[in-house]
Amino acid sequence: MTTTASITEYAATTRGHLEQPRTGVTALDDASELDRADPLAPFRERFLPIDDPGILAYLDGNSLGRPLRRTAARLTELLTVEWGTRLVRGWSEGWMTEPERLGDRLGAAALGAAPGQTIIADQTTVCLYKAIRAAAAMRPGRREIVTDVHNFPTDRYVVEGIAAELGMAVRWLETDPAAGPTPESVAAAIGPDTALVTLSHVAYSSAFLADMRAITAAVHRVGALVVWDLCHSVGSVDVRLDEAQADFAAGCTYKYLSGGPGAPAFLYVRRAHHGRFHQPIWGWVGRASPFAMADGYRPAEGVRAAASGTPPVVGMTGVADGVELVAEVGISRIRAKAVALTELAVELADAWLAPYGFSLASPRDPAHRGAHVTLAHAEAESLTAKLVKAGVIVDFRPPDGIRIGCSPLSTSYSDLWRAMYRIAELAH
Amino acid sequence: MTTTASITEYAATTRGHLEQPRTGVTALDDASELDRADPLAPFRERFLPIDDPGILAYLDGNSLGRPLRRTAARLTELLTVEWGTRLVRGWSEGWMTEPERLGDRLGAAALGAAPGQTIIADQTTVCLYKAIRAAAAMRPGRREIVTDVHNFPTDRYVVEGIAAELGMAVRWLETDPAAGPTPESVAAAIGPDTALVTLSHVAYSSAFLADMRAITAAVHRVGALVVWDLCHSVGSVDVRLDEAQADFAAGCTYKYLSGGPGAPAFLYVRRAHHGRFHQPIWGWVGRASPFAMADGYRPAEGVRAAASGTPPVVGMTGVADGVELVAEVGISRIRAKAVALTELAVELADAWLAPYGFSLASPRDPAHRGAHVTLAHAEAESLTAKLVKAGVIVDFRPPDGIRIGCSPLSTSYSDLWRAMYRIAELAH
Repeated sequence: MTTTASITEYAATTRGHLEQPRTGVTALDDASELDRADPLAPFRERFLPIDDPGILAYLDGNSLGRPLRRTAARLTELLTVEWGTRLVRGWSEGWMTEPERLGDRLGAAALGAAPGQTIIADQTTVCLYKAIRAAAAMRPGRREIVTDVHNFPTDRYVVEGIAAELGMAVRWLETDPAAGPTPESVAAAIGPDTALVTLSHVAYSSAFLADMRAITAAVHRVGALVVWDLCHSVGSVDVRLDEAQADFAAGCTYKYLSGGPGAPAFLYVRRAHHGRFHQPIWGWVGRASPFAMADGYRPAEGVRAAASGTPPVVGMTGVADGVELVAEVGISRIRAKAVALTELAVELADAWLAPYGFSLASPRDPAHRGAHVTLAHAEAESLTAKLVKAGVIVDFRPPDGIRIGCSPLSTSYSDLWRAMYRIAELAH
Repeated sequence: MTTTASITEYAATTRGHLEQPRTGVTALDDASELDRADPLAPFRERFLPIDDPGILAYLDGNSLGRPLRRTAARLTELLTVEWGTRLVRGWSEGWMTEPERLGDRLGAAALGAAPGQTIIADQTTVCLYKAIRAAAAMRPGRREIVTDVHNFPTDRYVVEGIAAELGMAVRWLETDPAAGPTPESVAAAIGPDTALVTLSHVAYSSAFLADMRAITAAVHRVGALVVWDLCHSVGSVDVRLDEAQADFAAGCTYKYLSGGPGAPAFLYVRRAHHGRFHQPIWGWVGRASPFAMADGYRPAEGVRAAASGTPPVVGMTGVADGVELVAEVGISRIRAKAVALTELAVELADAWLAPYGFSLASPRDPAHRGAHVTLAHAEAESLTAKLVKAGVIVDFRPPDGIRIGCSPLSTSYSDLWRAMYRIAELAH
């Protein structure tokens, strides 16, 4: 992939369906100029190269982040040294406490969370289950769980399952996916019977970025608790859990944190709730003094009471590398580039794609948008398949969304430009 | 580590505390001869070497199995090719169904389970939680969960937590750890109020090997269900879940399967229960047609209804390699070597260690013993620390046990001999 070709040169290499882009729209030369001026550009070298010349642009880091070179080296080291030679001694040489240590680093780098409140454990679904069960138990007598009809499926299913087992009701927020949930729409749906509200900070479909602070405050005003899903915001948005006084949060590590497919999740429990929250999956790692193997479960002090089984050491390796990279770059610079990339995506979609039946399904205001842009199109599913075949890796989300992920650390402006151009060619 | 030194030569390299071993006891030459005749010896080359000349013998594979060379290569391939280049397309190219495919291979190689009943997911604690909750829900009105006071801590804690949340009672089997639970002791503890029994197939402390078939039959006679913990039997004992008509089973993959520290667990659900078992953690991967992302949870058909979150692809890599190795060698040959190794350990413990206050805390009859041997000693904890320092990696289990793991695929007879000799030297 060249990064210096002019738009005319670039167009000559394509099938030439498109007319020259209208004046006033960012040209490939301008996109390349943005790359040259991008302070985050050098970090793209930290990722393993994509060994496939047919890939024009990978715009699905919001589903699965690309692996870091360092992770390849670290996994080899883990196998030969820590696991292969230190062997079982690894448990007392750091593995056992790594979920908390890495949780703290993640909290500092990407969550706005002071130490001692974040732990790496399980899959996101299981973390959500624990957090929502714990929150419900802290509000006995209240019978409603509130969530969003557009929340990610696992979040909705977890809520339905818990409501069924506890005899609670689900109150569904019927939000406009590109414009909510807002503090007002949440406030209108909650009351004295609300035990907890669970929402995604950034919506998986529209990338709508919720106002965590105002929504949390609204939920607290009625005496309820809030569980935030951070899957699409961790590592791409400046999350401030402590400042927002969030109660619980969970999220995955395989999107903007490059933890690897199915890498373990994280769970945050606000310090004020320590010693008072009770999750239902009692396991040896969540117990005080686990190696005592003593009779009777007594939860560990602090956030480790949220843990259950043996720490997923192999799975955490990539997560640690992703967290270190976010810490090194700084979340505010990452967020700034996410805004710039998604602004470019929106500009090019308006100029080139709107005439072909695409409409913006994400918020137009970047202050309300995470790091991806979703375009709605009647033939989104078949178009996505064609795009993937043509080397533009995006994904389809039912019913009609094409998601364009703009991972700030691995995506260049010219990658994005070329991908948008190719989409226009295919849609033409 | 030489494998041909005679016992006299070997003793000369030690601090010489011990007298020559009594006649009639296996000598190092004999142990080396056993290695030369061992059909499994060539498989030791499949493991990554331990890069530490201070390690005399690794006898803790029952806690953490050693990594396979193949896993190092496979993880590199996963990073550069599947994750690094196929990227998100990996989900439709095999990752999404790998938990079931690998579960089937595991079922065939090591569980005596026909296809479609085993899935890789979560950690053992979470799998036990799901299985026990599902079993309890299938026996509504029955109020007792039966387990063993000597069961592994996580199993006991999970049971306590579930009993607390469902308002059930725990009935504790007070077994002799080296002689139970037996079909008779279980039968005496169960009745019309028993919802389920959960036991370890091989006890983590004593290595007692329970009679899965007879106990399962006894449990079924009172109309209850059984959940087997296979952590210490999978890959070391010829497990026959289908033949025993076991209802549920779960276990870890980082002991005899070499999946790596904290690798994901597996969950088995007997086919007769499919469509009728309901686990409480409803997630997108456990739903019918997960990529439809549709409204309302409907469990998938078959064992996938036991899944919740995104498959742990990175964590499954080592598991797949371990399962293939077990399939290649054959579980009956593995079991035969486990018996031979533990018999040697018992023989040498009787001859060399009994005079120094050690007693056998494992069953003497190999038909009732898994692949480790536990020796009780009043100073077990401090002795274990000394042994580890001296390069004999064993582990301490409260209150007074030293566990000697005899992983059949990675442990040689002469490794074990030298380790037992060193224990005797230190205890002298």
